[in-house]
Formats: sequence, C-alpha cells, structure tokens
Amino acid sequence: MTSTTTGVEAGVDTSLVDGLVADLSDWSVEPTALQAARRDRSGVPAPGDPAVVVRARSVAEVQHTARWCSATRTPLVVRGAGSGLAGAATAGAGVVVLDLSRLDRIVEVDPVDQVAVVEAGVVTAALDAAAAEHGLMYAPDPGSVGISTIGGNIATNAGGLRGAKHGVTREAVLALDVVLADGRLIHVGRRTLKGVTGYDLVGLFTGSEGTLGVVVGATLRLLPRPAAVATALATFTSVAAAAAAASAVVSSGVRPLVLELVDGATLGAIDALAGTALQVATGPSGAVLVAQTDGSSSAAARGELDRLAAVLTPLALTVEATDDAARAEQLLTARRAALPAVERRGRVLIEDIAVPLSRLAEAVEGVQGIAAQTGTEIYVLAHAADGNLHPLIAVPGGSGEGQDEAPLPPQVLAAADAVFDLALRLGGTVTGEHGVGSLKREHAARELGPDVVELQHQLKAVLDPSGILNPHTTL
Amino acid sequence: MTSTTTGVEAGVDTSLVDGLVADLSDWSVEPTALQAARRDRSGVPAPGDPAVVVRARSVAEVQHTARWCSATRTPLVVRGAGSGLAGAATAGAGVVVLDLSRLDRIVEVDPVDQVAVVEAGVVTAALDAAAAEHGLMYAPDPGSVGISTIGGNIATNAGGLRGAKHGVTREAVLALDVVLADGRLIHVGRRTLKGVTGYDLVGLFTGSEGTLGVVVGATLRLLPRPAAVATALATFTSVAAAAAAASAVVSSGVRPLVLELVDGATLGAIDALAGTALQVATGPSGAVLVAQTDGSSSAAARGELDRLAAVLTPLALTVEATDDAARAEQLLTARRAALPAVERRGRVLIEDIAVPLSRLAEAVEGVQGIAAQTGTEIYVLAHAADGNLHPLIAVPGGSGEGQDEAPLPPQVLAAADAVFDLALRLGGTVTGEHGVGSLKREHAARELGPDVVELQHQLKAVLDPSGILNPHTTL
Repeated sequence: MTSTTTGVEAGVDTSLVDGLVADLSDWSVEPTALQAARRDRSGVPAPGDPAVVVRARSVAEVQHTARWCSATRTPLVVRGAGSGLAGAATAGAGVVVLDLSRLDRIVEVDPVDQVAVVEAGVVTAALDAAAAEHGLMYAPDPGSVGISTIGGNIATNAGGLRGAKHGVTREAVLALDVVLADGRLIHVGRRTLKGVTGYDLVGLFTGSEGTLGVVVGATLRLLPRPAAVATALATFTSVAAAAAAASAVVSSGVRPLVLELVDGATLGAIDALAGTALQVATGPSGAVLVAQTDGSSSAAARGELDRLAAVLTPLALTVEATDDAARAEQLLTARRAALPAVERRGRVLIEDIAVPLSRLAEAVEGVQGIAAQTGTEIYVLAHAADGNLHPLIAVPGGSGEGQDEAPLPPQVLAAADAVFDLALRLGGTVTGEHGVGSLKREHAARELGPDVVELQHQLKAVLDPSGILNPHTTL
Repeated sequence: MTSTTTGVEAGVDTSLVDGLVADLSDWSVEPTALQAARRDRSGVPAPGDPAVVVRARSVAEVQHTARWCSATRTPLVVRGAGSGLAGAATAGAGVVVLDLSRLDRIVEVDPVDQVAVVEAGVVTAALDAAAAEHGLMYAPDPGSVGISTIGGNIATNAGGLRGAKHGVTREAVLALDVVLADGRLIHVGRRTLKGVTGYDLVGLFTGSEGTLGVVVGATLRLLPRPAAVATALATFTSVAAAAAAASAVVSSGVRPLVLELVDGATLGAIDALAGTALQVATGPSGAVLVAQTDGSSSAAARGELDRLAAVLTPLALTVEATDDAARAEQLLTARRAALPAVERRGRVLIEDIAVPLSRLAEAVEGVQGIAAQTGTEIYVLAHAADGNLHPLIAVPGGSGEGQDEAPLPPQVLAAADAVFDLALRLGGTVTGEHGVGSLKREHAARELGPDVVELQHQLKAVLDPSGILNPHTTL
C-alpha cells in the first residue's frame, strides 16, 4: 500500500477518512490537492475544503470508495480533468473527491467494429488521436478536448463544434461501465450500433453529472475521419445579418462541419491579442461566421464549401473560402483565439444557452442588450448550426491569484440571470452542452418545472438512495 | 358524448368499464375491435380478449383513461398502428386498450428550426411527406414506415434502413409530451438541437414500449433531404463474401445511406415472387448487397457510389451501379420484395438481432447453421452497416385464418432460441430495433443480467407505481 501523502506526513488529521484510505494506493490530504479539487473552469470554487482526494488506480478502488461513502453517508464528488464550466466537479467541505484521471487506459480501438473501449480518465484528444491511426475520429469535440477526459465528457454530455453534423457525446456512447453508489459495478448498453433491449440506461447516465453513478469505462462509437476539410470566413456588418446567414446555410441543406458565429466585441479582443484586423473589417457591431465543411476528398469538401459560400455571398460583406491548410489556420484564428482573447481581459463567466435556430439573431442581440442594460461586458460566440450560444461575461476586477474567491459583482449576476431568462423566453435551454452543475440549479429547475424536477428526484433516489453522489449538483 | 359502440348496442356487458367510458367520445367493445387489439405483426396474439378499446380523440381523454386505470389498477396497453413485431402492443384479457391512432395531427413543420411537432398517431410516412415539402426528411425509416405511427416508433426506438448513417428514432426525438400513469401530462426535452438540462428523460421514455408513460406528442428533428440518391447491386457467391464486402465498405469510410444484405434463400423466394433471376446469379448459397448513397447533388451521390463500388468490385461476382431512377427501382427489388416473398411461403417470425460489425458473417452463417440443425426454413436480411440481422423463420403449416392462434412448433421455438443465443455469444443483442415486447422478455433479461433488470424494475416503479402500464411487456 503506497500513498502520495499519508496523513502523518502532511501533519493533517485523517482520522475521518482512515477507514477509506487504508485500502487505497494513492490519495492525498495535502492542502494544494484539496484546494485544487474545489475548482473547475467555471471560476467559482466550492465553499470549504474537501476531506481527501482519492486517485483511483483501479475499478476496485472506485468500488471501495463508493461503498465507504455509502456506509458513512459521506458526499462523493467525481472528477476528471476539472475542466467543467458549471461547478459539477467542484468539491466542498468534507467531501471525498474521487479523481479518475489515472484510469487512463485506451483498452482497444477496433477499426472493423468502429468502436473504442476506454477507461474514464482518457483525455478526449488522446482518444481521437488513437482513432486517427485507423482513419477514424471520435466526433464530439468540446472546447476543452485537449485536457478534458471522456468521463467528464460523458458526465456532462459534452458537445462541441462538430455537434450539429456528427452528434454530441450521447450519440457516441454505446455502453458504459458504472460503479453504483453501493459499490456494485454494472455494464449498460452494448457494442452494437443498434440495440433496444431494455430502458436507455446509457442515456440516463450520460449527462447526469456524477449524480447517479460513477462512470469508470465506456464503449464509444467512432466515425470515419473526414479525408478533407475546407474552410471559409465571412464578415457581416451586423450580428443579425450573420445569424440570418447561418440560418440560410442550415436551411439550404448544406451540413457544415463547423459554423461558428463571433460577435464584434469578441473580434476586437481577438484583434488586440492576435494582431488581426477583424473588427476593422466588420465594424464594432459586426460579426463573422467561421465555417468548415468535410468530405471524403478535397474535391468533396471543397464542393460543399462552394455551396455554403454561394449561400453566404449575397448576405455577407466578404466571403473568403480556402482549402489551403495554412490559410485555413489564419481564418480559424477568428474562432480559436476568441476565448483566450477575452480571458486576457479578466475573469470570465462562460455561459451556455441554446435556442431554436430561428431565434439565433434575437438571442445574440438580446445578450448584447443585456450587456448594455447591466453595464457589463459580454462577448458572444455561438455554435450557429445548433443554436448554442456562449455569452462570455467579463468580471470587472482582474483575474489575480485568489480572485475567484471574491463574490461576483451584482451586475454580473444580474446579467447572467437575464441571459438565462432570455434563453427560456426564446424557447431555449439554460445549458446547451456545459451542464447544470452547482451553478445553474435554480435556472434548470425553472426550465424543467416542478413535475419533472420531482421525477428527477425520484430517479436519483433509486440509484443513490443515500444521496451521496454529487449532492451539490443534484437539482 | 358519442361512442361508436355502446355496450347496450353491442349487447355486451360494459359494467366493468362504465366509469371509464362514460366520459369518452369514442370507444368500442365489439368483438372484432377487441380481437384486432390482441394482435400485432409478430403473429403471436395475446391470450384472452381485452375489456375495451378506447380511441382517444384528445390528450384529456388519454389522461382520463390513465387516471381511471390507475385508480382501478386495470392494465393499460397503448397502441398505434399495431405494426409492432414483438408483442408489445398486444392486449390480453381484461386490458384497457388505448388506441392513439386518431391523435394524428401534424401540428407544425418548421423549416428554419428544422423540427416537426406531431401527435403520437401521425403515420411515419405522412410526417416524412410533410417534411419533404420543405426539402427536409424524417430520417428514421422502419420497414413499416407506410403504416406505423410516430408513437409506435418512439415506443420501440424504431430503426430502419438509414439508421447507420442518419440515426434511429432516439436521435430524432427532441422533446416528448407524456401522460404519466397517474394522468399528469409532462413535457420533457426541448426544441433546441442541443440541451443538457437535467436527466435524459426523452431517452428514458424512447424505447420503453409503453411501460413508463403514454407518449402523446413529440418534437422531432428533421434533416436536410438528400437531393440525390444513387443505387448499386452487388452479387456474391457466399454470404461470408457479402458480409466481408459490407465490412470493407464501412471500413473504407464510405457512409452508405442503405447497405442491405440478402441471403440466397431469400433471393430464391424473391425470384419466385418477382420473376427475377437473383438466385440464379449468385447460386443458392450466395447473397447480394443492395447499396444506396446520398448527396447534395447527383454528382455527389454518384461520386460516393463510385467509391463504394470500387470497394465492392474486387470482392463481388458482379457490381451494377446506377443513378437512373427506373433501373434503381429494379435493383431495389432484391430488398423490397424480400419480406413479401418470404411471407408468401407461410407464417413468418421476424427476428431482429444485432452484432458488432466484425461478427456479421459469423452471424449470418450461424443463422443458416441453425436452420439446418433445427430443420427450419430461415431467410436472412441484414442492415449490414449496423450489424442488424432479420432472420425470418418460416412456420410450417400455412397462414390461414386463425392460424396465428396455433402454438408455434417446437423446432421453430428451438430455432428462435438458438438465434438469440447466437446473438449473445457474438457480443450482440436480442433486439436491434423491434423491441423486447412480450415475446423476448426472457432473452432480454439474460442479455441485461440481474442487476440491470432490478434497476429497470426500480425505475418502472417510480413512473408506474401501480404497475398498470403494459405489464405483459415489462421485464
């Protein structure tokens, strides 16, 4: 039995978790480890320090931890990379943190079955790279793809830029290995592409944010990797024009791989960071669309891009289409640099609403109106082909060390509330792909209504009768 | 208050359901109606006559019926077109049958949002036709698409020929209106393409075969309708060669719209029905693949077909590719005429296993081996791109009136059992797209294992505490 830090070495009282850690190989009560587990990428840490961070090295250790937490009624919070944006994996006072990032084995990639079998801690990009060796891809591509784990992707039903064409995480998950709250290990789903035996438990666990069970492994569907991608950038003098053009693309029957809308405020931030002149081209109230198409050959991808460009051209200020890789990288800066550019301006709340496609322009303009009304800076990115907006709300006061402990200013909270209200008013949802976590519980409850919330509580009680699994995230 | 048949007119005692029917506009206790409700397309009627057939004309009538059944603990079986193949909607002794086929309104088709809102009784093909007016399609296309209802599709999570490329019913369902066992109406899901607020209740109800709630309406995702389709027929001297070729197509990165395998026995039946010479071309132990590709133009669809044909040609006896519509219709006979041709030979049990893609050849050959061992006639069709096989087991003794009341001969039961065993031995499932129904409960329980079955029972108890919803179908 080894541990990275024993209670004795750390000079910390571990008596509360002695019964847990005695049978574990890797755990920590070091303040830095506990502090880190309070945080995700939402910028809002959980209050208080967790009791211990368990770094599971095997499914048996996960089972042991679940059993111990159930027996002692200790809250259990599962973490992967900590890249979540809704406070689902942030561990507060007294919590046992179960870090699955060491369960990072790609068990197999089967190019004939077109499936991968992985442990929960595998990094999304590592899986996609392994798939690429066989001409395949793992389609879901959340922005955090370089660091996020498959387990975290499954916990949030993560989306990404390619979701509108190739599906989100749920569409890629064929089967799951799940440790239940009582420590039993079950397997749900199957390795076949089709299958309807029994209730859709794969769907029930996917997106349940660690509240129904601990996903330790997954069988994932892989898709043929596009042989070629082509890229376009279109500029518009208004957000409404860009949103209308995105809608026209979708209505035309073109199915872009990527169709990203970036508003003028964000373009200004990108220009400042990357030395581009995007906002100069569009004006401060303009916007761009960054589009990509894929195909089984360069000609196919380019043919699809030409169709897309033909839709955009009458609606845009300028349209540039390319299948040159280097030029494509330059065009993609308008999207890739967006978040880093805005984050340079301070602490950022990343919101995540989705609306029906016909309401996209109203949603973007509505967010801009909220910024004006609340006196906040809000930058807007959108996955335009599926109506999923990420308003980035800048928090005044910088982003220095420990800054995230400061309460959010009232105008920021008012802006966030107004954004959620807007989403619901437009027939949308308060979270398109990031999850409810601990931060959006109230708004989610309003979206779902009391009957559905009650039903969720009842389902939760079946799977987690002691209520130990991520209680701070449960609606 | 009108009714098609009152108890008095029919001379039948309705005292048991008086409290129910007094508030309904359309119901029947006529023997022909009751007899019809005992049956679906599985060929195995439920034992005994149901008590009444309620033809709901409104959601309020569905709620009333659910409330009455809950209060009186009367089993409630929901039906659409009765086109199911697993005995999920077959209503036995004393049951209240809730026929939703009159709830057949297409509420809206929104070409910008790319969604349709429909009542549960809308016929699948009618929805697809309404979508086609806007250049869209409803992608799931079960074999029964011309008669089956959306509610039935949702109840079984129906698949179809285009499932491997464009998804099955689950992928098309964005939101559901569900009447719970206690009569409450809830709305789950949303109109947005992405959304992760709360547990995936849409997924939980989809495929639950009427055991968790009564789906009365749905918001469905529509996809751009392919502008063009191209068709190919490839012949092979063995099933193994055809299955290997299908696997090669999938591995090549081509994503066919349709990729159907038809075995030699079935080809013989088609030749007898349609005057073709398919089995003459392949020999009795041969097979064909019928393939289609889609695209945004004739050139795109044909380009994809040419890629597909290039994969098939070195592996096939012959490959014919066409984008001529009339010739395509002739080639498609090899698939379209399959079921009618086999049904001409007598009563048919339509099985529905799925296996990982790499096991397709073993599965088809395994089924042929079972036919030989059990002395039965089994014809095999497969949706080859998703490993979904339909072994058609011919029942000796003809298909005359009332023939379906006869018990299935022991060799047919033995063959069916062996087919299910084969599916599980190959890492597959006992039902790819038809559902468990009342006919595959035992085999499904074996596939799922006791822990998952127990979990299903617990989830069922949350949604249907009195156990009134399709109790004959619940695992």
